[in-house]
Amino acid sequence: MSESTIPYKIYLKENDMPRQWYNMRADMKNKPAPLLNPETHEPMTAEELSAVFCEELVKQELNDSDRYIDIPREIRDFYKMYRPSPLVRAYCLEKKLATPAKIYYKFEGNNTSGSHKLNSAIAQAYYAKKQGLKGVTTETGAGQWGTALSMACAYLELDCQVYMVKVSYEQKPFRREVMRTYGAAVTPSPSATTAVGRRILAEHPGTTGSLGCAISEAVEAAASQEGYRYVLGSVLNQVMLHQSVIGMETKAALDQYKIVPDIIIGCAGGGSNLGGLIAPFMGEKLRGEKNYRFIAVEPASCPSLTRGRFAYDFCDTGKVCPLAKMYTLGSGFIPSANHSGGLRYHGMSSTLSQLYHDGYMEAVSVEQTSVFEAAKEFARVEGILPAPESSHAIRVAVDEALRCKESGEEKTIVFGLTGTGYFDMTAYEKFNNGEMHDYIPSEEELKRGLAGIPRFPGNE
Amino acid sequence: MSESTIPYKIYLKENDMPRQWYNMRADMKNKPAPLLNPETHEPMTAEELSAVFCEELVKQELNDSDRYIDIPREIRDFYKMYRPSPLVRAYCLEKKLATPAKIYYKFEGNNTSGSHKLNSAIAQAYYAKKQGLKGVTTETGAGQWGTALSMACAYLELDCQVYMVKVSYEQKPFRREVMRTYGAAVTPSPSATTAVGRRILAEHPGTTGSLGCAISEAVEAAASQEGYRYVLGSVLNQVMLHQSVIGMETKAALDQYKIVPDIIIGCAGGGSNLGGLIAPFMGEKLRGEKNYRFIAVEPASCPSLTRGRFAYDFCDTGKVCPLAKMYTLGSGFIPSANHSGGLRYHGMSSTLSQLYHDGYMEAVSVEQTSVFEAAKEFARVEGILPAPESSHAIRVAVDEALRCKESGEEKTIVFGLTGTGYFDMTAYEKFNNGEMHDYIPSEEELKRGLAGIPRFPGNE
Repeated sequence: MSESTIPYKIYLKENDMPRQWYNMRADMKNKPAPLLNPETHEPMTAEELSAVFCEELVKQELNDSDRYIDIPREIRDFYKMYRPSPLVRAYCLEKKLATPAKIYYKFEGNNTSGSHKLNSAIAQAYYAKKQGLKGVTTETGAGQWGTALSMACAYLELDCQVYMVKVSYEQKPFRREVMRTYGAAVTPSPSATTAVGRRILAEHPGTTGSLGCAISEAVEAAASQEGYRYVLGSVLNQVMLHQSVIGMETKAALDQYKIVPDIIIGCAGGGSNLGGLIAPFMGEKLRGEKNYRFIAVEPASCPSLTRGRFAYDFCDTGKVCPLAKMYTLGSGFIPSANHSGGLRYHGMSSTLSQLYHDGYMEAVSVEQTSVFEAAKEFARVEGILPAPESSHAIRVAVDEALRCKESGEEKTIVFGLTGTGYFDMTAYEKFNNGEMHDYIPSEEELKRGLAGIPRFPGNE
Repeated sequence: MSESTIPYKIYLKENDMPRQWYNMRADMKNKPAPLLNPETHEPMTAEELSAVFCEELVKQELNDSDRYIDIPREIRDFYKMYRPSPLVRAYCLEKKLATPAKIYYKFEGNNTSGSHKLNSAIAQAYYAKKQGLKGVTTETGAGQWGTALSMACAYLELDCQVYMVKVSYEQKPFRREVMRTYGAAVTPSPSATTAVGRRILAEHPGTTGSLGCAISEAVEAAASQEGYRYVLGSVLNQVMLHQSVIGMETKAALDQYKIVPDIIIGCAGGGSNLGGLIAPFMGEKLRGEKNYRFIAVEPASCPSLTRGRFAYDFCDTGKVCPLAKMYTLGSGFIPSANHSGGLRYHGMSSTLSQLYHDGYMEAVSVEQTSVFEAAKEFARVEGILPAPESSHAIRVAVDEALRCKESGEEKTIVFGLTGTGYFDMTAYEKFNNGEMHDYIPSEEELKRGLAGIPRFPGNE
């Protein structure tokens, strides 16, 4: 295929959009370890999980054998409103770097939630609606997930209650207003609306909240209202499944032009974007059909894969959720306030953790000033202002392309551009003013976090 | 063509993107009146205009005979980074309204500037670069134009100086930071960097600035620096020309599916989006080949077409720019502070003014609470959070679709969705809180503005 025939943006036709999600777990020899009941340390049963998640999602959470799962028509119709997302050939970035590498990025920011989160939000809202539920509850930090869920619920006329970390609620009033415009009830967390919120407020009167606390409130709110369930935007197996639509589209677009990537790069917080982007490619690698390099990029200030421990740990700070086996920094670990944007979760998807543990994937950590440098360079030549999270992947894609420049190799690099930075201008302002600093947790600090990982038989 | 074959989004292939702009003036029997020198009242010559605009743009400004003008390859390459923009079939909105009307919208918000302004920004920056200039100056109010110009200049490595109305500079720090991220120098206006700014600051020490003042500063800044020219994001003939890419793409997409619109609707401030969207359709109407209804939608608080006078008037408050013949409320008219978003200009593109005067186009004005109602309804079902400006067109498209519901007519309605509202959440917040009010200027207030229109022979 001659170079000049590859357009700037490859859009699939609507008819060519994926009709099934791909379930990586089906092809894994070492399956991700099951969630454990925090009290009994026994695997969570479908019944136990059904108290928290709606039934269809419980099935998906536990399903590690079906390779493909049909995407319901209603969800595919919703996907058509903002998908297929473009696979962009970064001609301008290549030229700027003067690299022989060919760089592509899958851009998930062309929807009002500003990120890929909508892919799973609509699926989770759809199954809740189908089960006849009244509404869902969730937590949000930076706000991308809360916005996505609000949009999905508005479309399906489902009630949506978002617990937003108080400091974000106050510092990001615009994010909050987008959610309200979509009809969500947004409560700053911790709040007096839940028992756990009242307890935390009494213990720490001046607290500005944390993601862990907001999760606890959202879970309690779901449990205490008839017809409500809790939903989550990352980490879970079901989320990896829904997000596989990113990778399926990417692969279909590349296949159309007979392009085979050498390296696939994604930022990693809880793993929803990375897991989705690499899914079908990882499937080929797991089945021994093809080989690819996969690189997870995490912030140096929250380095779960590169400096964490592979162990069973609590998913939330309140320790009320099931235990998951994952790379973790300990559920008490909180990244420095200095850190901008998302990718703040102390753990990592069990699926991705297992794949990393088994050597199918690499991981690197990068510092935020170098991330924003790459973001700014990218914005100027490619015309898209990237989210801080996505810019972690840009940083490493640029680094790999520059390596190609040195070696003269014409590698094909694909990375995930998960979203836009329109609601992150405070961080850009800091960077533009030279006031942004890096932060790498000390060994001492990490030890304190890791010490919180529970000890019980079977935890390595 | 069967209904089911029309996708949610029609994307042209890159190869099918327009290679020429369409110049409506070539098909007009009554040409728009020329710009006049404010001192001599004689038509501005190419030489006089060249002091302000770069040469190629002067040619385009004065060219009312060539129907098509080639889009340079470099501009087409830039367009490929964010165009073609999708023509969206509003299936979900139709369903929500239960209307037999078929509704389409051309969505121009999928780029970091958040609006259609980038289409002309890159053209103006390109010709400036080609002429060997060092940089350009401009003013910005709400910030869409300044952002678009910053992006274009970053891409071409051209210096960019933006005078931003002080109240916006302070209230919209995020808009300002986007421009800075793209390397623009952003100065709050009025400033001490220009003579006119210093004069105004001395006369009105506490002023928060106005668009008219920012224009004067930007023009002075261009004139006083070697190798700089002034650029403008709307009103001018050249801008209508560049924006015709919107209409050309829209028409090509509709033609592919043999769809013929009955009504085409756009919001109108200075006219850049409306003029671009309707251009090729208006061409057919002017040549007597087809008939369409065109509707310009303006805010009730700034009703230049519906309540203004068709006369020669100053384009800026400082009265230093040429006079243009247009529908105007008088250069001293300032819309109520109560008004949210753009569409605040006292006049209207000469081309559109002439077409309206000659009966080729209709105009309606709408009140802002009804605009935000439509915006919110649209956001919930179509998943895009629209800019306040664009929402004026949504309001009237919905009204026309509801008329079809009453009459049972299956009309095809096309409207321009010029941009997204991510930087307008303060206005949405006001609306969400029930704190937004309407404002219609009184006859007395309008009279005061109209009294400022200059009197001289030939001015009707």
